[in-house]
Amino acid sequence: MSTKLGVNQSTAELPSKNTSNDELIVPEVAPSRRGAWNNPNNLKPAGPQGFESLAAERAKASFDPSQLSVLLHGKENLEVEKMILEVLESEEVFSKENLHFMSREQRFQNAMARGKRMLELAKEKGWNMDLIFRAMLLLDEPGPFSLHYSMFIPTLEGQGSDEQKAKWLPLAFDNKIIGCYAQTELGHGSNVQGLETLATYIPETQEFEIHSPSLTASKWWIGGLGRTATHAIVVARLILKGKDLGTHTFLVQIRSLKDHVPLPGITIGDIGPKYGYNCVDNGFMLFDRVRVPRESMLMRYARVEPDGTYVRPPSSKLSYGTMVFVRSSIVSNAAKNLARAATIATRYSAVRRQFSNAEASKEDVVAGDYNVKKLLPRPAETAVIDYPMQQYRLLTQIAKSYALHFTGVSMMESYHQLVRDLSNGKIDGLPEVHATSSGLKGLTTDMAAAGMEDLRRSCGGHGFLKNSGFPEFIADYLPNVTYEGDNYMLTQQTARYLVKTFRSLKKMKASPSNAPENITPTTRYLLDAAQPSFSAETWPVKSAADLENPSLLTAAFAHRAGQLVADLVRALDSGELTWTTAQLDIYKVSRAHCQYILVDNFCRALQGEAIRSQPPSIQILLHRLFTLFTLDTMETELGSFLSSSPTFINPTQISLIRQGVRSLVNALRPDAVALVDAWGFSDYVLNSDLGRADGRVYESLVESAGRNPLNLGENFPVVSGYAEHYAPLIKGSGAVRAKL
Amino acid sequence: MSTKLGVNQSTAELPSKNTSNDELIVPEVAPSRRGAWNNPNNLKPAGPQGFESLAAERAKASFDPSQLSVLLHGKENLEVEKMILEVLESEEVFSKENLHFMSREQRFQNAMARGKRMLELAKEKGWNMDLIFRAMLLLDEPGPFSLHYSMFIPTLEGQGSDEQKAKWLPLAFDNKIIGCYAQTELGHGSNVQGLETLATYIPETQEFEIHSPSLTASKWWIGGLGRTATHAIVVARLILKGKDLGTHTFLVQIRSLKDHVPLPGITIGDIGPKYGYNCVDNGFMLFDRVRVPRESMLMRYARVEPDGTYVRPPSSKLSYGTMVFVRSSIVSNAAKNLARAATIATRYSAVRRQFSNAEASKEDVVAGDYNVKKLLPRPAETAVIDYPMQQYRLLTQIAKSYALHFTGVSMMESYHQLVRDLSNGKIDGLPEVHATSSGLKGLTTDMAAAGMEDLRRSCGGHGFLKNSGFPEFIADYLPNVTYEGDNYMLTQQTARYLVKTFRSLKKMKASPSNAPENITPTTRYLLDAAQPSFSAETWPVKSAADLENPSLLTAAFAHRAGQLVADLVRALDSGELTWTTAQLDIYKVSRAHCQYILVDNFCRALQGEAIRSQPPSIQILLHRLFTLFTLDTMETELGSFLSSSPTFINPTQISLIRQGVRSLVNALRPDAVALVDAWGFSDYVLNSDLGRADGRVYESLVESAGRNPLNLGENFPVVSGYAEHYAPLIKGSGAVRAKL
Repeated sequence: MSTKLGVNQSTAELPSKNTSNDELIVPEVAPSRRGAWNNPNNLKPAGPQGFESLAAERAKASFDPSQLSVLLHGKENLEVEKMILEVLESEEVFSKENLHFMSREQRFQNAMARGKRMLELAKEKGWNMDLIFRAMLLLDEPGPFSLHYSMFIPTLEGQGSDEQKAKWLPLAFDNKIIGCYAQTELGHGSNVQGLETLATYIPETQEFEIHSPSLTASKWWIGGLGRTATHAIVVARLILKGKDLGTHTFLVQIRSLKDHVPLPGITIGDIGPKYGYNCVDNGFMLFDRVRVPRESMLMRYARVEPDGTYVRPPSSKLSYGTMVFVRSSIVSNAAKNLARAATIATRYSAVRRQFSNAEASKEDVVAGDYNVKKLLPRPAETAVIDYPMQQYRLLTQIAKSYALHFTGVSMMESYHQLVRDLSNGKIDGLPEVHATSSGLKGLTTDMAAAGMEDLRRSCGGHGFLKNSGFPEFIADYLPNVTYEGDNYMLTQQTARYLVKTFRSLKKMKASPSNAPENITPTTRYLLDAAQPSFSAETWPVKSAADLENPSLLTAAFAHRAGQLVADLVRALDSGELTWTTAQLDIYKVSRAHCQYILVDNFCRALQGEAIRSQPPSIQILLHRLFTLFTLDTMETELGSFLSSSPTFINPTQISLIRQGVRSLVNALRPDAVALVDAWGFSDYVLNSDLGRADGRVYESLVESAGRNPLNLGENFPVVSGYAEHYAPLIKGSGAVRAKL
Repeated sequence: MSTKLGVNQSTAELPSKNTSNDELIVPEVAPSRRGAWNNPNNLKPAGPQGFESLAAERAKASFDPSQLSVLLHGKENLEVEKMILEVLESEEVFSKENLHFMSREQRFQNAMARGKRMLELAKEKGWNMDLIFRAMLLLDEPGPFSLHYSMFIPTLEGQGSDEQKAKWLPLAFDNKIIGCYAQTELGHGSNVQGLETLATYIPETQEFEIHSPSLTASKWWIGGLGRTATHAIVVARLILKGKDLGTHTFLVQIRSLKDHVPLPGITIGDIGPKYGYNCVDNGFMLFDRVRVPRESMLMRYARVEPDGTYVRPPSSKLSYGTMVFVRSSIVSNAAKNLARAATIATRYSAVRRQFSNAEASKEDVVAGDYNVKKLLPRPAETAVIDYPMQQYRLLTQIAKSYALHFTGVSMMESYHQLVRDLSNGKIDGLPEVHATSSGLKGLTTDMAAAGMEDLRRSCGGHGFLKNSGFPEFIADYLPNVTYEGDNYMLTQQTARYLVKTFRSLKKMKASPSNAPENITPTTRYLLDAAQPSFSAETWPVKSAADLENPSLLTAAFAHRAGQLVADLVRALDSGELTWTTAQLDIYKVSRAHCQYILVDNFCRALQGEAIRSQPPSIQILLHRLFTLFTLDTMETELGSFLSSSPTFINPTQISLIRQGVRSLVNALRPDAVALVDAWGFSDYVLNSDLGRADGRVYESLVESAGRNPLNLGENFPVVSGYAEHYAPLIKGSGAVRAKL
C-alpha cells in the first residue's frame, strides 16, 4: 500500500538533458481484453475457499447460534426484522450496492428519495412509528427525515399542549410538515444555559420576536434543517417584560409550504460535509427579528398568557425524561454497533490467511492453476483467526459486545420504570437513572468506538476500503462520543450523584446491615466503602476456580469503585481538591462505577430466568463471556485497581487473572464465528465485502472494484483527464510553460 | 446534533384520517433575503473575539516560540518551507478551499492536475527531489504520482543494475514513464513469502512469463497503478528450470505509452474508495501469461543469465535497508502529525467557551447586540482551555508530540549511520536498527493515531466537520498503523531481538561492569535485568524533587522493560509459552522497550548540546515536557509497571507521579498555545477553520458553509430534488402509489 514519506532516499537533481521514451512505445495492437478489466478467466482465490473456511468454523461451535439469537433479540423481533428486510431488499432505491461511489450531493438526493419511499411504504404496509424506526435502523443511513421522527415529533408530544398536539401531530405524522429540533448553536454545544437566541414577547401583538443577536447565536448542527425542514422547534431564551426567563421551546415555520423558500428574516443553510452522517443535512439558521404568534411556544408545562403573564412549569426535572431516554438508547445501541464490527472482523479472520505457523494444517494446499505443476502442493497459509493475538483481539471485543447488550437491556428497563414512576408523580428514581445513563453513555460509546476501530484494524489493509463496511459505519458512529453530552463532561453527572450518596451514607452512619430504605442497587456497594475497615479488605480469590464465581468478580469492581468514591470525597472534603480541579479524579470515579455496573448487570443476567432456562451449552458460553469480559477489564484497568487499593489484589491473583484471560480465549475460540452469527446481522445491514456470511470475500472485493466509477468514463479504459494531465508529461509536450 | 436511535418514545399509529396543511401555507412574499443565506448583517461572534483570546494566550508564554521553532526544524528548513509555501499558495490549482466539497472523481481530476503542475514547477524552479518531496508534504495530499517518487524511483535506484538505472532513471525523473511498486496482492499483505504472482523464465526466447495463477494473486492496493502508471515494479516468484527461487523484482510496462491503454494480457483497475487516501489510485492488476524480456528483472543483486543460470545476491540482508528507511520515516512523521492535531485543538480550545465556572473572568461580557439592553452584561462562558480535564488532554498530547520529535530525529540518525555502515560493508548494526524501527513504527503510529482522534474529540461537535481539518487528515493517517507491517505483528521483530540479546548476555554472564563490546545503547539496560538481584531492586525516588531528575525516570522505564524481557525469556525457556502462544507477552515487551526508547531519547536530547545552548526558558520548558510525558506514561501504564515488578514502585511514589502530572500540566498551561505555535504549521497546511492562527473560528465556519455546494444548485435557495421528493409529501400528492 502507498506510503506518505517526508524524506526520500534520492536527492538526485532532475536531469537537465532531454530524455525521450520514443523507443519504448509499444506498437498499437488490439489489446486482448481492451475494456474487460474485471475478473478475467473467472479466477478463483487460492487455497481453501471462503465458504469452506466459514463452514469449518461453524461446525466447531459448542452451541446453537439461532437459539442464542432468540435470547438476544426475541423471536418476534427477529420475525419483524426479517419481514422489513424483505421489503427493503426488494426495492431498488434501498440498494446499498453503489453508495460508496456517490458524491455527497448524489448521496443526499438518494437519501431524499429513500426518505420519501420509506414514508410511502409505511402507508402502503400500515407500518407504525416503531416499524418505521426499525426499517430506518436496517437501512442504516441517518437521513433528512431522521430528526423529524427522533426529535421533532417526540418533543411535540412531550412539550406541546393538548391543543398544540391536536393541531400539529397529525400533520407531522403525515409529513405535511417536516420538522427539526433547533437547540445547538454555533458557539454553544452542551450548555443549554449558554444559548443566545432570543424570543421576546410583544404583548401588543401577542407575538414572539425570534432573534439571533450574534454570529455564535446561529443555530448549528441541526439535523434536517439545512435543506429539508419546513418547521423547527427552536430553543430560545424567553424574554418577558425585560426579564430573561431562560430557554423555552417554540414551534416556528421556517420555509414556505408552497415553494420551500426560507421565510423572510430567516437565513438557512447546510453546514457542510462531515466525517460521517453525510446524508443528514445538518443545518444552520439565523433569525432577523422574526415574529411568530404566541401559540408558537410549546406550552405543556410553562406558559405565557396573552397579557405576558408567565406561568411556571410544575417541575423543572420533568424535561430530564427525554435526556434519559436519549442516553439510554445510545447505551442500548453500543452493543449492536460493536457486535456488527466484530461480525465483519471475525468472519474475515476465518477466511484471511497470512504466514504459516507450525500448527498450520498440512492438508490445506494452494489451489491456483500454477503453470509450474511440480511446485505444487504449497501449504496454505494459516488463517489469521488461528493466531493468539488475533483471537485475543476478536474475542475480548465479542465479550464486550455481550456485556454491553445486557447493560443496554437493563438501562432501557430502568428508563421504562422511570417513565411509569414519573407518570405516577414519583420522581425520586430520577437522580439515579440520570447519573447511570450519563456515565454509561460515556463509557459504552467509548468502548464501542474504540472496539470498532480496533476491529477495523484487525482486518489489515482491507479494513481501510469503504466496501469493507467499516469506514462509513465507524464515521457515522463517532458522534456518539460527543453529542448528547461530551463523554468526559458527563462523568461529572455520575460522580456528583455518587459523592452525594456517599456523603449521606457517611452522615447517617449507614452500614450493610443498616442500609437506608432508598438505597439503589447500583450504589449499594457504597455501604461497604463507608465503613472504617474498608481499605484493609482483600480480594478472597485463591485459585483459578474462584474466578468462576461471578460474585467474587463483581466484588472486585465494587471495591475499586467504592475506594475511588471514598478517596474523592476525602480529597474534596479536606479541601485538597475542588470540584473543578478534581476533573481527572471525577472521570476515574465515573468510569470505575460504570464498569462495575456493566459487570453487575451481566452477572444479574446470568442469574436471571431468561438465561437459566437456556440449555447448558448457552449457559456455559455466556458464563465464559462474562468471565472473559470481567478478567480482561481487570487486566486492562490493573493500574486503577492496584493504585486505588494497593493491597486488595495480590501478585498471585494478577497471575490468575492473566491465565484466566488466556484460557478463556482458548475456550471460546471454537465458538468465535457462531458467537457473531448469533447477533444475526444480515448481509444487507453489514454491507461488507469482508464480513459476508458466505465468505466470498475476494470475489466480492473484485466485483466491487468492477463497479467503481473511477475506472469508467467515456475514455474507458483510459482515465478521464489523460489527454490533459498525463499525455503532456509522457509524450514530452508538457515541458515548462511560461504561465499556468 | 442529530441522533440515531433505535427505539422511539412514540408508538402511535400513523393517522388514517386525511390531514391537510392548507391553512398553514404562508402567502407568497418576496423574502427579504431570498438567496442570501450567508452571514447576514455581518454579525460578530458574541463574547471575546477569537483573535483576542489567542493574543491573550500568546502573551502568557514563558518563552519565544520562534526560537523553539528553529530548534525543532532548523533555520534553513524553515526558510525553504516558507519559499515553497509562497509558491503553492500563489497557484490556484493548489488551493485547499473547496477540497471537502469534491466527489472522489473530482478530487482525482484535481490531483492529476496538481501532480502535473508540481512537476512543471519543479522544472521551472529547478527543484530537486528533496524540494519536490517537501512541496508534496506541504500540499498534504498523497496523489497519483506519490508512489512514483517514494517507491518506484528508490527501488530502481536500489535494485537496478547500472545499465538499468542508466536507461530508466532519466525517463522516470522526467516523467516520460510513470511508475508504481506492485508488491501486495489481494490475498497477501505483509507476508512477501506468500505472494503468488509468478515470473517463469523461458530460456528459448530469453523472456519471463508473468502470470497471476489465482484471484488472490491479483496485485492490490498498489498506489498509482489504478489509473496512472505506465510501468510497474512487479514483485513475483522467480521460477527457474522448475524451481521456485522466491520473490524478485521485475520492471514491467503495463500501459501503452501511446494511448495509455493497458497492454494485452494485463487487467488493471482502481480498487475503489477508501477511508482516506482517495487521491491515490490504489489499483489492482492481473497478468495473463505476459511475456517480458530478460532485462526486465532488476539485476543489481540477483541475476538470471540468458541461459537461465541463476546468480545469487551477495547478502539477503541488504534489502532490509529500504524497510528500515520506510519505518524510520514513519516514526519521524508521527510527531508532526500529532503536533498538527494538537495545534488545531489547542488554539480552538482557547477560542471556544463552554459553561461558566467560578474562576471565569468577570470582565468578559457578551458582545452581541441584544435587543433587551438591560439583560446585559452577561458574563462570558469559560474558555475550555481553562478546564483541568481539557488542559490535561491537550498538554499530555503536546508533550507526546515533543517526545516523538526527539525519537524521530534519533531514528533518522540511526538510519543514516546504518547506510554509512552498510556502504562500508559493516552490517552488524542492522539487527538493532531493524528491531528498533519495527517496534517504534508500531508504538509511535499508535500514539499519533490515538492522540489525533482524542484531540479531534476534544473539539466537541465541530471536530466532526470536515473543515475542522481533522476527518480527512486522520483518515489519511490511519493506514500508518497497518501498512509497512501491522503494528501488532511488528512487535515480534523487536521482541525477538531483545530475547536473543538477553539470552546471549545471560550465557556470557555479562554484567554492567563487564559488558560485551557490541552491546548497543538501546539494550544496555538488559545487563541489569540479567543479574540475580534485579527483581529485588526498588525505585529510589523519595520526593517530588527526585522526579525532576531525568535519569531516575529513565531508570524506571529501563527496569520495567528489563523485567518483562526477563519474564518472557523465562516463560519461553521453561516451555510455559511458545513463540506463538506468547504473542500477547511479546506485544507488551516490545511496547515497554519502545516506551523506554522514547524516554531515553528525550533524556539524551535534553543533555545534548543543541538544547543546552538554548536560553533557560526553553531548557526549563523542554524539561517540563519531558517530565510530563514520562510521568503521564507511567501513570497510564501503571498496571504494567506494578504487575511486572510489584515492589519496584511503592504507593507513595504513585501519589508523587499523580501529583507530578497535575503540577506539570499547571506549569505548562500558560505555554500551551506557544508550544503549538512553535511547531510552525501554516494555515495552508492546517486547512482548518478551528485551528487558524488568527482565531477567526466562527467567521470561518460560516464562510465555509457559504461555499457548500449542497446549498447551491439551479433551484437556489430551494434544494435540488424538492419537486420530486419533498413537494409530493408536503403538498399531499405523494399519497400511496401502487408501484415504485
